[in-house]
Amino acid sequence: MTRYVNDSDLLQFVQDVFSSFGISRENALICADNLVLADLRGVSSHGVARLRRYVDGMTNGTILPHSEPWVVREAPSTATVDGRAGLGQITGHFSTGMAIEKAKKTGVGIVAVRNSNHYGIAGYYTQMMLEAGLLGISMTNTAPLVVPTFGRKMIIGTNPISLTAPTKRNRPFFLDMATSVVPRGKLEVYDRMDRDMPAGWAVDSRGLTTTDATEVLKNMVARLGGGILPLGGEGELYGGHKGYGIALLVDILCGVLSGGAYADMVDVKGPGGKGQPARVAHFFMALNIENFVELDVFQEKMDDLIDRLKESEKAEGQERIYIHGEKEYELYEKHKSSGVPLEEPVFDSLKAIALERGVPFEL
Amino acid sequence: MTRYVNDSDLLQFVQDVFSSFGISRENALICADNLVLADLRGVSSHGVARLRRYVDGMTNGTILPHSEPWVVREAPSTATVDGRAGLGQITGHFSTGMAIEKAKKTGVGIVAVRNSNHYGIAGYYTQMMLEAGLLGISMTNTAPLVVPTFGRKMIIGTNPISLTAPTKRNRPFFLDMATSVVPRGKLEVYDRMDRDMPAGWAVDSRGLTTTDATEVLKNMVARLGGGILPLGGEGELYGGHKGYGIALLVDILCGVLSGGAYADMVDVKGPGGKGQPARVAHFFMALNIENFVELDVFQEKMDDLIDRLKESEKAEGQERIYIHGEKEYELYEKHKSSGVPLEEPVFDSLKAIALERGVPFEL
Repeated sequence: MTRYVNDSDLLQFVQDVFSSFGISRENALICADNLVLADLRGVSSHGVARLRRYVDGMTNGTILPHSEPWVVREAPSTATVDGRAGLGQITGHFSTGMAIEKAKKTGVGIVAVRNSNHYGIAGYYTQMMLEAGLLGISMTNTAPLVVPTFGRKMIIGTNPISLTAPTKRNRPFFLDMATSVVPRGKLEVYDRMDRDMPAGWAVDSRGLTTTDATEVLKNMVARLGGGILPLGGEGELYGGHKGYGIALLVDILCGVLSGGAYADMVDVKGPGGKGQPARVAHFFMALNIENFVELDVFQEKMDDLIDRLKESEKAEGQERIYIHGEKEYELYEKHKSSGVPLEEPVFDSLKAIALERGVPFEL
Repeated sequence: MTRYVNDSDLLQFVQDVFSSFGISRENALICADNLVLADLRGVSSHGVARLRRYVDGMTNGTILPHSEPWVVREAPSTATVDGRAGLGQITGHFSTGMAIEKAKKTGVGIVAVRNSNHYGIAGYYTQMMLEAGLLGISMTNTAPLVVPTFGRKMIIGTNPISLTAPTKRNRPFFLDMATSVVPRGKLEVYDRMDRDMPAGWAVDSRGLTTTDATEVLKNMVARLGGGILPLGGEGELYGGHKGYGIALLVDILCGVLSGGAYADMVDVKGPGGKGQPARVAHFFMALNIENFVELDVFQEKMDDLIDRLKESEKAEGQERIYIHGEKEYELYEKHKSSGVPLEEPVFDSLKAIALERGVPFEL
């Protein structure tokens, strides 16, 4: 059964849960807002379904809720921030704020972040930059779930990229994508349905394409070999080496540039399977458009670009060409009015968390 | 028959050809160096085989060899440059030089460029940034050869991205890739062989996958519909919408941010099929690594990242995991010693150009 929950109530509840760890109301709101925005936009894999992980992380000490981000290096247009194993959302929000301020002053703000945690959807931070009237880019490395081209071990993350750009007439351009063929969640869907997944999404323990999602997920958990393929699929025939290259671009800008963790150092278990800080790294870049061209001209060109694409002739059998973010804006509006859909297991997990944390549950 | 030509002789010849249009020896050398570097690195599609296009462009007035790039806007970390229909290589070299200088002074240099021409390989400019000890990014939009997801008209370019990052022990990381599944050149190979190309590379005039490279190329030339697919292929099943998104990211940073041309405004024929300036747009970004982390630490982490990938277990039937740029470094060394391979038609085209331009031909 799917329950439909009012987003303000959900936000309030999630904020209360974060608050119960003794962090400020403002910081708790940032964390809650990030998760609920994902649900509103239809990215439920990154929504309140993940609250359990954050709660567990704060409980077992792999996430330090009272850690404050520390600015390691700073110049007018650049900075490196150490998240000190704090909440990824708080570190991400803080670092994006720095990037925005720098962009407003100097035209560009770039902040590389190390030692952070899962920061939720990459688009939360580009949304902030968009609201500030800027062009925004946000990237993060993640737990290694992706095999390099010709490999059979998960060495790189699903390393998402988000870019937002303001428009005038049309909805803003809002790209937010993993650089793997699919996210892990898609394999889980096929596993639950007990159906063959499409060939070319993931490889088995020998490093060869398989359609058995259940086996791949089992191998992924046990790290027995195999994993998700980079965008472009297996080998080089369809450009898998390009997806692999883009994933590395993200990891170099996040993990290496920040002086942090990268590749299979990120978000892995410690010796003896013990939990340890995830050491996730991020990269934020804000550009003040007026430094390059009149904002007005930029927005008109964005609208024209979008029009050219949307009005272009469709492939046989297709009725619509999408612009990135469009589907999510539509879901956002739908969920704002009809409520955020929560699957029963997610709803139950929230209820259990409420009980554990002594937080009122009135959803 | 393939001829093997000494790269210095080839460089000299190509420089002479550009010089014959009355541009400075320095600028002619930049143009020649760009083309010969592509051949040395094994990217022959972007090498001297393209000299004919530049010569024709300069002859028919779509490329203005005496145009000097003009700085439209400038701040300590940012600039917009108008290429004024000049040679893309000269505008690219000039703009990259600005980005490098800005990065050295402020930590970051970003230069958006409009009204340029084909600038050769994207990697020529990241190579410059690499040699300056910086992290470098270079992107360009191109003639529209790619159909958006669910579309059947070529609206977006193959929009390449290059990123270079310095190392210590290993060869530098050197990504240089189109954001389409394949470049047009791959279709041409299958056309010449008269063989079926793999499904999922390109679509026919109805917007559906086809294996008929000859038909696609014919349709592309006549702009009858169909074209190359974005990285990830047809539809959304394998992430084609992601490749489409990355191509738009490139076009927004190049075409829109510079206040220039984008999408199907780039490099298309004018009314009545007449040639007109290509209005190609670029984006260059240089980062001074020390602004973020000690260069030493960065390089060690890059080496470690590369080692982790290369030493990782291989897929069944594979013996090697590649790092981006590796294959090209190996070809570069090979071609430096054994000569640059030129196919007969390319060799003949150079000979014809020599005659036309009154330049000595001693290859």
